[in-house]
Amino acid sequence: MLLRATPPHTFTHTLHATSDPQPLRVWICSQRARSVKMPSFSWLLALYLAALTGNTDGAVARESTERNCSLTPPYLPSTAVNTSLQLEELRVQMRAMNISAYIIPATDAHLSEYIAPRDARLAFMTGFTGSAGTAVVTLNKAALWTDSRYWVQAERQMDCNWELEKDVSISSVAEWLISEVPKGDEIGFDPFLFSLKTQGDYNINLESTDRSLKSITENLVDKVWKERPSVPPDSLTRLPDRVIQRTWQEKVEHIRTQMGDNPYKPTGLLLSALDETAWLFNMRGNDIPYNPFFYSYTLLTMDEIWLFLHVERVTEELKVYLNASCEGALCVQLKGYDTILDHLKNYVTRPGVKVWIGTEYTNYALYEVITPQDKLLTSSYSPVLTTKAVKDETEQQILRDAHVRDAVAVIQFLMWLEKTVPEGNATELTAAEYVDKCRSKQKDSRGPSFATISASGPNAALAHYSPTKETNRRLTVDEMYLVDSGGQYLDGTTDITRTVHWGKPTEMQKEAFTRVLMGNIEISRTIFPSGTRGVNMEMLGRRALWEVGLNYGHGTGHGVGNYFGVHEWPVGFQSNNIGFRAGMFTSIEPGYYKENDFGIRIEDVAVVVPVQTKYGNNYLTFDTVSLVPYDRKLIDMSLLSSEQLHWLNKYYETIRSLVGAELDNQGLREEKDWMLRNTEPFAEIGSSASVSSSSLTLIALAVAMLHNIV
Amino acid sequence: MLLRATPPHTFTHTLHATSDPQPLRVWICSQRARSVKMPSFSWLLALYLAALTGNTDGAVARESTERNCSLTPPYLPSTAVNTSLQLEELRVQMRAMNISAYIIPATDAHLSEYIAPRDARLAFMTGFTGSAGTAVVTLNKAALWTDSRYWVQAERQMDCNWELEKDVSISSVAEWLISEVPKGDEIGFDPFLFSLKTQGDYNINLESTDRSLKSITENLVDKVWKERPSVPPDSLTRLPDRVIQRTWQEKVEHIRTQMGDNPYKPTGLLLSALDETAWLFNMRGNDIPYNPFFYSYTLLTMDEIWLFLHVERVTEELKVYLNASCEGALCVQLKGYDTILDHLKNYVTRPGVKVWIGTEYTNYALYEVITPQDKLLTSSYSPVLTTKAVKDETEQQILRDAHVRDAVAVIQFLMWLEKTVPEGNATELTAAEYVDKCRSKQKDSRGPSFATISASGPNAALAHYSPTKETNRRLTVDEMYLVDSGGQYLDGTTDITRTVHWGKPTEMQKEAFTRVLMGNIEISRTIFPSGTRGVNMEMLGRRALWEVGLNYGHGTGHGVGNYFGVHEWPVGFQSNNIGFRAGMFTSIEPGYYKENDFGIRIEDVAVVVPVQTKYGNNYLTFDTVSLVPYDRKLIDMSLLSSEQLHWLNKYYETIRSLVGAELDNQGLREEKDWMLRNTEPFAEIGSSASVSSSSLTLIALAVAMLHNIV
Repeated sequence: MLLRATPPHTFTHTLHATSDPQPLRVWICSQRARSVKMPSFSWLLALYLAALTGNTDGAVARESTERNCSLTPPYLPSTAVNTSLQLEELRVQMRAMNISAYIIPATDAHLSEYIAPRDARLAFMTGFTGSAGTAVVTLNKAALWTDSRYWVQAERQMDCNWELEKDVSISSVAEWLISEVPKGDEIGFDPFLFSLKTQGDYNINLESTDRSLKSITENLVDKVWKERPSVPPDSLTRLPDRVIQRTWQEKVEHIRTQMGDNPYKPTGLLLSALDETAWLFNMRGNDIPYNPFFYSYTLLTMDEIWLFLHVERVTEELKVYLNASCEGALCVQLKGYDTILDHLKNYVTRPGVKVWIGTEYTNYALYEVITPQDKLLTSSYSPVLTTKAVKDETEQQILRDAHVRDAVAVIQFLMWLEKTVPEGNATELTAAEYVDKCRSKQKDSRGPSFATISASGPNAALAHYSPTKETNRRLTVDEMYLVDSGGQYLDGTTDITRTVHWGKPTEMQKEAFTRVLMGNIEISRTIFPSGTRGVNMEMLGRRALWEVGLNYGHGTGHGVGNYFGVHEWPVGFQSNNIGFRAGMFTSIEPGYYKENDFGIRIEDVAVVVPVQTKYGNNYLTFDTVSLVPYDRKLIDMSLLSSEQLHWLNKYYETIRSLVGAELDNQGLREEKDWMLRNTEPFAEIGSSASVSSSSLTLIALAVAMLHNIV
Repeated sequence: MLLRATPPHTFTHTLHATSDPQPLRVWICSQRARSVKMPSFSWLLALYLAALTGNTDGAVARESTERNCSLTPPYLPSTAVNTSLQLEELRVQMRAMNISAYIIPATDAHLSEYIAPRDARLAFMTGFTGSAGTAVVTLNKAALWTDSRYWVQAERQMDCNWELEKDVSISSVAEWLISEVPKGDEIGFDPFLFSLKTQGDYNINLESTDRSLKSITENLVDKVWKERPSVPPDSLTRLPDRVIQRTWQEKVEHIRTQMGDNPYKPTGLLLSALDETAWLFNMRGNDIPYNPFFYSYTLLTMDEIWLFLHVERVTEELKVYLNASCEGALCVQLKGYDTILDHLKNYVTRPGVKVWIGTEYTNYALYEVITPQDKLLTSSYSPVLTTKAVKDETEQQILRDAHVRDAVAVIQFLMWLEKTVPEGNATELTAAEYVDKCRSKQKDSRGPSFATISASGPNAALAHYSPTKETNRRLTVDEMYLVDSGGQYLDGTTDITRTVHWGKPTEMQKEAFTRVLMGNIEISRTIFPSGTRGVNMEMLGRRALWEVGLNYGHGTGHGVGNYFGVHEWPVGFQSNNIGFRAGMFTSIEPGYYKENDFGIRIEDVAVVVPVQTKYGNNYLTFDTVSLVPYDRKLIDMSLLSSEQLHWLNKYYETIRSLVGAELDNQGLREEKDWMLRNTEPFAEIGSSASVSSSSLTLIALAVAMLHNIV
């Protein structure tokens, strides 16, 4: 699935006044990569807010008109949400806390990329349902910061209570705060919704200006959000044994070993990200759309385990599974989700304790109670996240298996499109429904892993597009079509993008598609020393595009999980991702987008595998596990190098073998024929794959000349 | 010239206990790239110390035996320096300051990469003359930290007063300090020799341990170093008009414009790096071997200029040039070098001032006096460094010109070797002398830009090798030879490495050489968007090596100056270098080193130039300005892609044209013939350069087959 719009290799830094010798830079872009879109989630939210605001026609997200606040009275489209009441009520709360401004981020207490409706505070306050943004309310003003993907949407959804700030940097928010908040006043924030870095960046930007941040653990929006959705009552589940190699007890022991080996001798490890706890206990939930997570924290010490969650959702069977009725080293003591802060405070009063936290996923509320400071040990990622990043043999195998079944679904879908589109009966929306349906028929299906991006023609050029009734295009043989979709399966999470054309593509479309494909292949086939970071290789995905002055404005890949998040960090090609090791899975997804015309993305998931080299040891490469052929008519073979051609043929051989067997297995004969047709080997001359197509012409010429001579 | 031994793409971070939400990581490796070797400087120092210690035979640096401190009495080679006296005297100073340890780094107050003999405090204290290291003295122990390149040398040069710690991380020094310094005690350091980052890293590692750092501005080593060399009396010089496009007044106005444009409104800019002041005023000095720098600082405000230097070295003519007798906006007020701290303290007492510093090159002593904190504005690099990084048209042209003359010298040298080596008369040392001699004959020569690395056979596998009497090898037709050398010219600084073989190289040598060359070409020919960072492209220099499991352990390139440092930051391929813009010059220098066998490096300097692409604007590529052919017999043509071959032929065409004209100009006929022979075009078939050598075989085969058929 597509990453956010900022290329990871072009971080810029801003100057700032500081008293601190260490934090010398403020990154304009958050170093944590976030998804550029959660369209279906926005849609859910839009529906939710529509209900909330009495706008029940469902057409909230898209309308052709934007607000015009310079008119008297202002013009507001029907999609705009009246926020006067919630603002008034929030300001009452703010006055009671004696703060002059309140910052409202778009995340949850686990710094999740996707959030549940009950955490959509930004949308509740502003009306704006985009996935990225920051709102600030002062006693007489309100402003929203979001990036260019969302400006139009914000102008359609917000009323004139809100200024739209077309920037996303913390320094920009801080500048605004400095101009709006009087000297000496305080600016409130919910420390549960701030990462350490966010808090630090605000602090740096404000500290020499005589305005200070005030941490308020009771969220002020929640106080005025009367109909805030509650936590879903669904029971939590454990994974079946057949998808598990390591029991939770083994994982706990393994993590404790790492704690023991750490030179700073942590006594406790605090887990805050939702997939940390879910991974450790081999459990899943359903609290966040598309993500089988459940609200939780874990505090793991060398001889105790505290699991913080909504205890009422833990079945008796699960309690037995977790060994929840004792207090020993392998007993899981269940504690209320909301008691984490008190328990943590209590724990750090014990003499000699030191709590290890991963700074990228721990919120400021938990961080700030770990005092005195020598009780704290930090790393960017907890040992759970770095351990989880390398899949064990079972996880690798079942994730590969899930991709084989997923390929069957995508092949069914592509075959259906090939038939249906020329008949004029398919649209972006029906296509999105159909691919979901195909996946749902596969074994162990648990629904889509994100809202399908189904985009035709110019719609595909919008990075965060997902179809709605208003924007829905009929699929035709005259337009390129991009589909980025994935499934959750009990054994794995998938994510694949294919771009196709059912008519005659232009030369430029073919060239761009081929160069995107070349980027995908160049990353996939590259050989590199173990530990090499993705950010140092991702230009291979861009290089063929750069050669002709093309590029794309999003990241090049992200980790994927085993029935987990479709963006599973810290694996991937972003600047804050860790080095690649054998057993990691990542997406590889270069693209190209021509405004108002078309969009191309080719995305596959690959596993990092050891490779034998002529001279050295400990070298790795990628093995692509997404197994769906590319559209042949979009490939300009003359651009491919012999090595790229060779890679492509080998990849197609793998599809034929693995997906062929599964298609046989499922008795899908027509699909198998389609797959075989679409994976026929491309002409390769010479066993070592070393002639380009223009050489073929040369051979022909040489032969012709010789003929004349003879 | 070769960069330090740590590959820039494999930074690791360590865990640490911290109270601060911002500085989440301590980089084990200093992010500032440093040269791995300053061999001739070490040699100078060795001679200097030999004189100092009565060891006058000059054979200090290399001897076959190492100290053995476990014997009674300990065995000490003649190369070891008795440091008992200086240690005793230093401890007297330490007791007087009430500190339990004293840290001695290897840099100077300008955080220079190369240092003058008077700043070689580490060598004076330890006997160890390597370019990298940190010494710590406690009241009863002494230890040196240095990296693997220098372990043998340290064991030969240090006496048994010193422990050798085989690590270079600040956390390792800190751990040792924690074990040796009692709780509550203070650890002294000279803040002039610490960067902000160094101070911060020590602080982070020590802060929760009840041991604190004590900043002592009077260096304690200087107090006991009675024969410390004084500042050279040489007068400073200004650059002649013919090598200048921008006068110092224009540069000052340009920098002031940037200060005015900065949103934080700095009132003053403090320049600490030696090349900052030298660049601003178009002046040069001679204080540091190979580097035409002079000890200086500048404090530039919107209406005043204070230049801190040894005023007695400024001639009357220079005073006129600098407009030194007034106090207006374009008058340079000359102040004593040692008065910087007082002036700065004084300046920050003025109301409303804000001082802009570049954190990478400002020492902690200057930083710590800029209080209160809202008087400080930081960026990684000062606007002088980022402005200097992009050469103006004149600088570009004269730097290109200098490389043409430099190529003549290197070609003369290579031709001489080709004749001399088979006669058995050349050694590493005579070769190094000869190349320096060749350069000295070229117009505007100002000596070598660093000590020539002249290394044959296994010696070339040592990253920091430079020949000495003891290690000197005779050059033969049986060994590969690596020469890394450069010149200072009034119009530019050069740096080039060639690896040659005068006999029959092995297949492995040819393969490795060719793959290093492929790396050089792949970087050189790549097309990328303006602003792309070198660190995101440097894997192109390694990729052909990685394919067969080979690699190299140093950086891939660094900026170069106009009659300045041979490593001119922040341009290059290191992780802390800025994005490439048109007009920047960088070296490109992949390599491969086979222990005890041979070493290969191919280094060229290239300028970043705009390139026309099919679809996009604002794309760049490299134009190689080093103009010396590679050894043909080491190139395995079958490995090169058609694009690489095409690049190589175009490069050779450029050499023929530019160096050919200069050779004609200098009347060097034999050299011209040699150059023409060595730049003969390689066979390329097809106008678009698209057939590999194996295709040629195929054509031949096709023709042969047809012949039979016909």
